[in-house]
Amino acid sequence: MRRFKIGLLGCGVVGFGFVRLVQQNLDLIRQRSSSELDISRILVRDSRKHRPGVDPRLITTRADEVLGNGADLIVELIGGTDPARSYIREAIAGRKHVVTANKAVLADAGRDLLDLAAIHRVRVGFEASVCGAIPIVRIIRDGLSGDRIRSITGIVNGTCNYLLTRMSESGTSFEEAVIEAQGLGFAEADPSLDLNGTDAAQKITILAQLAFGDAEHRWLRREGIRQIDRAALESAASGHRVIRHLARARLADGVVELEVGPEMLGLDDPLARVRGESNGLVIESDAAGQLAFFGAGAGSLPSASSVLADVIDVVRAVT
Amino acid sequence: MRRFKIGLLGCGVVGFGFVRLVQQNLDLIRQRSSSELDISRILVRDSRKHRPGVDPRLITTRADEVLGNGADLIVELIGGTDPARSYIREAIAGRKHVVTANKAVLADAGRDLLDLAAIHRVRVGFEASVCGAIPIVRIIRDGLSGDRIRSITGIVNGTCNYLLTRMSESGTSFEEAVIEAQGLGFAEADPSLDLNGTDAAQKITILAQLAFGDAEHRWLRREGIRQIDRAALESAASGHRVIRHLARARLADGVVELEVGPEMLGLDDPLARVRGESNGLVIESDAAGQLAFFGAGAGSLPSASSVLADVIDVVRAVT
Repeated sequence: MRRFKIGLLGCGVVGFGFVRLVQQNLDLIRQRSSSELDISRILVRDSRKHRPGVDPRLITTRADEVLGNGADLIVELIGGTDPARSYIREAIAGRKHVVTANKAVLADAGRDLLDLAAIHRVRVGFEASVCGAIPIVRIIRDGLSGDRIRSITGIVNGTCNYLLTRMSESGTSFEEAVIEAQGLGFAEADPSLDLNGTDAAQKITILAQLAFGDAEHRWLRREGIRQIDRAALESAASGHRVIRHLARARLADGVVELEVGPEMLGLDDPLARVRGESNGLVIESDAAGQLAFFGAGAGSLPSASSVLADVIDVVRAVT
Repeated sequence: MRRFKIGLLGCGVVGFGFVRLVQQNLDLIRQRSSSELDISRILVRDSRKHRPGVDPRLITTRADEVLGNGADLIVELIGGTDPARSYIREAIAGRKHVVTANKAVLADAGRDLLDLAAIHRVRVGFEASVCGAIPIVRIIRDGLSGDRIRSITGIVNGTCNYLLTRMSESGTSFEEAVIEAQGLGFAEADPSLDLNGTDAAQKITILAQLAFGDAEHRWLRREGIRQIDRAALESAASGHRVIRHLARARLADGVVELEVGPEMLGLDDPLARVRGESNGLVIESDAAGQLAFFGAGAGSLPSASSVLADVIDVVRAVT
């Protein structure tokens, strides 16, 4: 059986989940990809941190030891724009396939990276960059490839949705809800990229590029949940409406209009039912009509499941 | 630009939708597949029937004229077990790729056909065979390839769900609801395969094979909505529960347990909210957790969208 060598950049929440998932599912991976996956080197920031089940000999703090190690594929899970972007470019230029969960790099330079990958004839998988376990990249890129998408509307930031759910359903204060979300592990120590809408804006940008290609983009609004005032929350809790933090992309006269911000939804709206840290997406297209998708938007194993699916896709395609 | 020649078997509801969709989306197909699709021959039962927009010179009543016409790919949309199965086998043996919406053939002989396709190195796409526009085949086969699915629960028969919705929400009689559904075009003249659960059983069999591979299957129950009595419907309408016609597959001690039949659901169940002719599916898996998918389960353009996506997948993979 062919061995497929993987270099892993980052062993945080998702990276560690990926290592565990590969270990747990060795038989299933063999069956579905006809290959052995071999995580051969792992870049970390702190090599002394205890990582149960991870062979300490694989750990390094030097990126060149992962990128230059003869891997077939690089899994990038360090996040943020730099140095992740240069690692991805270096991997592609070295003719390694790439799987990444990096929404910041993809929203900013996704097109360039895919063009570079086409030149070097390697694949770039990025399912885990948007909506965790919901296979929304495949749904748009492959499942709706014969259809014209008109709009995508989604709850794509689990932290915001958790806060809004707690605040409107239990009267928890904003500050308390943030501390809860941090304690549960799905809000960052500094949750400002979630709260100010940057995270949702990056995700809807990636989906809009998949759905609408190179059409001109125009931002209509870009604000986070901080703008919601207590009066609006109270009116939502008392009436038949809820507040949700929505990301929207729609094609209007050939221009892609993008929007991120809090909106009031009637209780019968499919997205009104997305509670806690979950994600949900509604797509309207010409032929398929309305489709809706719900699931875990983040988390160690849900995101790792999407990363591993991308890895298996690459293995199936190239072996 | 490369031309990709398609032979079409069947020009009924979905086949005619497919021809229209290809005509409408020529530019989009070129963009996304870097190829021109050319529907070069169309098998029909009645060549005199008026089909607006379909070039009458392409029409034939002889299958050999479609199968022997040098097509790269055969789209099979005639349905039923025979002669569809032998046409598909003939196409594969002649090294043509196949895209089909045929749940009967796939439930019965899917494994054999995929094995045959592997031998002849061609692809078989069957997204449209289950749940119309919901890309559930891709979601299970590709999106969850690194994960262990525990169960699939779905409303996979739009006709049954339409009848149950009408009967429980509007007090429409079973007989009236059937006539309505026929008038709206999503119940067959003879809807018995929908009503007795055969259609749902075929679909859940296909999904179970994708999710659980060759594990032993065991049917727990297999009954149609006819078994629902008026008393149960009335208790559902009055209480906080609804009746839905569910198809289930779950792995228990290495055995796949399959079940099709009416069940009572609480109003907070995700599948309780599937109304009318829509379909819905809930998947539970080890790493991804719970995922839910909703959309049009049948219909000319929704199903044609899935057929065309499969065609584009083949074109992308082989050109």
